[in-house]
Amino acid sequence: MDNTVKQLAVLGSTGSIGQQTLDIVRALPHRFQIVGLAAGKNLDLLAKQVSEFKPSFVYYQGKRAHLPDGDYELLSMEDIASHPRVDTVVIATSGKSGLFPTLAAVKAGKEVALANKESLVMAGEIITNEAKLNSARILPIDSEHSAIWQCLNGETQSVAQLILTASGGPFYGYSSARLEEVTAKQALKHPSWQMGEKVTIDSATLMNKGLEVIEAHWLFNMPFENIKVLIHPQSIVHSMVEFIDGSIKAQLSYPDMRLPIQYALSYPERLANPQLPRLDWSKINSLTFEQPDFDTFPCLRLAVEAGKKGGTYPTVLCAADEVAVDLFLAQRIKFVDIAKLVEQALEQHRVVAHPILEEIVAADTWARQKVLQLVSGDNPC
Amino acid sequence: MDNTVKQLAVLGSTGSIGQQTLDIVRALPHRFQIVGLAAGKNLDLLAKQVSEFKPSFVYYQGKRAHLPDGDYELLSMEDIASHPRVDTVVIATSGKSGLFPTLAAVKAGKEVALANKESLVMAGEIITNEAKLNSARILPIDSEHSAIWQCLNGETQSVAQLILTASGGPFYGYSSARLEEVTAKQALKHPSWQMGEKVTIDSATLMNKGLEVIEAHWLFNMPFENIKVLIHPQSIVHSMVEFIDGSIKAQLSYPDMRLPIQYALSYPERLANPQLPRLDWSKINSLTFEQPDFDTFPCLRLAVEAGKKGGTYPTVLCAADEVAVDLFLAQRIKFVDIAKLVEQALEQHRVVAHPILEEIVAADTWARQKVLQLVSGDNPC
Repeated sequence: MDNTVKQLAVLGSTGSIGQQTLDIVRALPHRFQIVGLAAGKNLDLLAKQVSEFKPSFVYYQGKRAHLPDGDYELLSMEDIASHPRVDTVVIATSGKSGLFPTLAAVKAGKEVALANKESLVMAGEIITNEAKLNSARILPIDSEHSAIWQCLNGETQSVAQLILTASGGPFYGYSSARLEEVTAKQALKHPSWQMGEKVTIDSATLMNKGLEVIEAHWLFNMPFENIKVLIHPQSIVHSMVEFIDGSIKAQLSYPDMRLPIQYALSYPERLANPQLPRLDWSKINSLTFEQPDFDTFPCLRLAVEAGKKGGTYPTVLCAADEVAVDLFLAQRIKFVDIAKLVEQALEQHRVVAHPILEEIVAADTWARQKVLQLVSGDNPC
Repeated sequence: MDNTVKQLAVLGSTGSIGQQTLDIVRALPHRFQIVGLAAGKNLDLLAKQVSEFKPSFVYYQGKRAHLPDGDYELLSMEDIASHPRVDTVVIATSGKSGLFPTLAAVKAGKEVALANKESLVMAGEIITNEAKLNSARILPIDSEHSAIWQCLNGETQSVAQLILTASGGPFYGYSSARLEEVTAKQALKHPSWQMGEKVTIDSATLMNKGLEVIEAHWLFNMPFENIKVLIHPQSIVHSMVEFIDGSIKAQLSYPDMRLPIQYALSYPERLANPQLPRLDWSKINSLTFEQPDFDTFPCLRLAVEAGKKGGTYPTVLCAADEVAVDLFLAQRIKFVDIAKLVEQALEQHRVVAHPILEEIVAADTWARQKVLQLVSGDNPC
């Protein structure tokens, strides 16, 4: 038993994952302590968190007036992520804002509990190389990757394939024609998970699963050919690993992000936490599985193709999707236009094969402008 | 990679598990070699196996005339199980005949791949103590225990409970009244597994699952309170482990005993074997689960109670069940009488709390006679 108190920095502390990370710290204060907090827009909540957890380092966007006085230092996210007093950095920011702090943490040899998909999707090669060079450990917080990581415990050598499960989102089973009419309000009603807006829309398009395939490729050093996706609407089986003898291991729990968050923080230990729900098998009658529909939900196919092609394609995928989802939430485009815009951006992109960071940032900027340009044109899609 | 060729003794080589063990050796001859074979009644098949695998040591019941000449030595099962040239002993005998060879193998510090439930049920305390004393390793071959063992890989410290799955057998869902009428022929038609007659009937009464609960108690040093049974008719999820943080790991595959056999032989490695089937998720729509019905299938309750009470009770359970199943197969009693006879034997037994081997053997003999006596009486059940 390791009874030292782990010093955590939580970047994106006011978002869904950030708040749930703080729930774990509240439940297990003898094991975890908050040394750094960083947030973007929700300064009222950050102020409350600063009062409660009394971090030494804080980052925020906005006016100082909102935050309580206190004995904390204002630092950039990169400086917090790489500070010697921090053991584990929780990257719970959304979108590309996680990229630079993740790199800073990895270069500083930290344990990086990673909930931000975009970092690995955009810069998987750079981040995993830096992690190797600096003996940093990347610990997945996504429920699917946590499931795979748990199933690989004790045997990482004999893997045949990874099977990522997907709830399918609120529209799975819809025809393409019916998808034409769906609204942002409908798309935000996820059947099994409570999550942020961006990832909820990405779940409905299956882009989220595509990003997770790319993430799994980098996290587990697995060829794309050996990563499969399976629709599982109940979100109880979070993912599976098939070994070379045909044996499959699966990880199961209710859909509650606090479990993968806690596992990443407590690894290699597991900690009892009465607040985490335990599966009630008297209420689970049936777990169902079906093959994904790549035609009706083209984002999954686009993501896997971008991942296979590599270079700056995954960055363009990510950036184009982020802008397209914003446009959909603002009711400026239809649900089905998200995939169309992403596909057009990918088609028009001039790829850089093994990009340095500046080329990734340039591809990101290009893709965002391209999507806006496509939408503002006469015949965008 | 361990590339030495493991020297195997297969006791019970002509039974279902024994034959499938030889299938694995045929498929992976560069890793496994047969040094000993032992069988009971099926001497024709044993003769063929001796010709094919050319073991150094053979045991059989019956006339020498049936076996081919060859360069093998005739030894007892105990002598084969403890021979210095043997690395791993596969105990694939049925019923109590596995007990003494298992003990001999354990005392000789062998790897013991154990398919025989009765050994651990009857003498779990003695066998596990001897295994500890002699650094012998007991490797489970039962699909359920193999599943748990696989799920425990890499993390044995944080277990909250074991969840043994059960197909429920051919009669699950039947009323007690309908069970009154079922025949041996119906009971032998197992919906998902191809197995020997005794274990097939035990599956239909759920006694098999009860014996497995006792086996799991000894194999994994787990209190009975933390071992649950869940009905899962598809026999795809072979068992599960719930950890203290609420996370559950499950092991899945088609119901094919060759996988747990091979895993026990290859452990801690996994070996690719194209003959082992891989789950086809396009054909698996639904995995269902329900609570066991302890009232209609009292054998499960009887077994768990006998396990909790300990001493010679599990031996009486085993022996009474073995005789009762024989009587049912011989059409001398009804299906529902199996549980009644076992219950009566348990009720009338004078338990020995921490039995030595001789007391276990005496309890076994007593229970067999008791059941025969109950049946031959005027009002047996």
